[in-house]
Amino acid sequence: MADTHSLSALIEGLRRLPGVGVKSASRMAFHLLQHDREGARALAQALQEAAAQIRHCNLCHTFTENEICSTCRDERRDRSKLCVVETPADQAAVERTAAFKGLYFVLMGKLSPLDGIGPKDIGLAKLFDRATDGVVQEVILATNFTAEGEATAHVIGEALKARGLNVTRLARGVPAGSELEYVDLGTIAHALVDRR
Amino acid sequence: MADTHSLSALIEGLRRLPGVGVKSASRMAFHLLQHDREGARALAQALQEAAAQIRHCNLCHTFTENEICSTCRDERRDRSKLCVVETPADQAAVERTAAFKGLYFVLMGKLSPLDGIGPKDIGLAKLFDRATDGVVQEVILATNFTAEGEATAHVIGEALKARGLNVTRLARGVPAGSELEYVDLGTIAHALVDRR
Repeated sequence: MADTHSLSALIEGLRRLPGVGVKSASRMAFHLLQHDREGARALAQALQEAAAQIRHCNLCHTFTENEICSTCRDERRDRSKLCVVETPADQAAVERTAAFKGLYFVLMGKLSPLDGIGPKDIGLAKLFDRATDGVVQEVILATNFTAEGEATAHVIGEALKARGLNVTRLARGVPAGSELEYVDLGTIAHALVDRR
Repeated sequence: MADTHSLSALIEGLRRLPGVGVKSASRMAFHLLQHDREGARALAQALQEAAAQIRHCNLCHTFTENEICSTCRDERRDRSKLCVVETPADQAAVERTAAFKGLYFVLMGKLSPLDGIGPKDIGLAKLFDRATDGVVQEVILATNFTAEGEATAHVIGEALKARGLNVTRLARGVPAGSELEYVDLGTIAHALVDRR
């Protein structure tokens, strides 16, 4: 409709969010305009500020507003260990365990030839520079246990081993609290092979 | 993290969208910042413009950028029929049928005492003024066939009948293309009662 151009533009804008189709976008637009215009203005402001200020850490590649992120600057971190994860969300999951005190390298993606995502898109050259700085002793591959995550871990692992680094992978096995009866066969098979 | 304040603000802003929790919001923020900063800026712009320009039509209460929306201004519309719907999306659904040439009143909600939504919040006084303008002959209640939609239709119907108006409700019955075996009992019972 000619007199709702800005509404159509808003629905188009919301559809650029991942997982949002035209029905969800319309519902979101209705909610913001009818019940939460303050929220609409706050979100607009947050989008502009984040788009302008968020950059990548020069060392680990994660999102930060500075040249080096707060984790990489933290003096208490063990600089001899480097954990490679796919996304900041994965990094946050590892952090929540409080079981790792080293540093990270965040790929911001995974190798995915079908989507046209190659080594350059996930900064592998930068990772290889980072891992061979002479301080890093061990690289822990914590990419996801999906086909693409495993392939990414394999490529990185081979390249780093060729450079003489000690490379490990997160253990595969039975999740904590689960009953064997309900665990898939592949997981049990891996847990048997990797038994300790 | 102190150096990702604008990222946290963006995730908070996205969580104000209906149906978006912290995981979805994080995924959306990651997507926008890593793959579509142009989309983030476009969405910010669209949010600001819509929040500033979209208002309610003086006649039918739907979203518009003008005093009167394009549907209410359309001279070819039958001004003797007024169809009452809950939302602009419901109005669009009725429009797509091309089976109705009258005008609309959009409640922008439904009566919902548990959520604190009363007659004032859905503009019932405005609807009663609108329906008793002397031109409207028939009011068609097209609120949803949910408990709240039915209650809303009941309240509006009683009030308008008391004002001497001809009030109808969308027919209940078996959906087009469906097999009786798979239609719920309540629908079949209604279709029997309303048989023609």
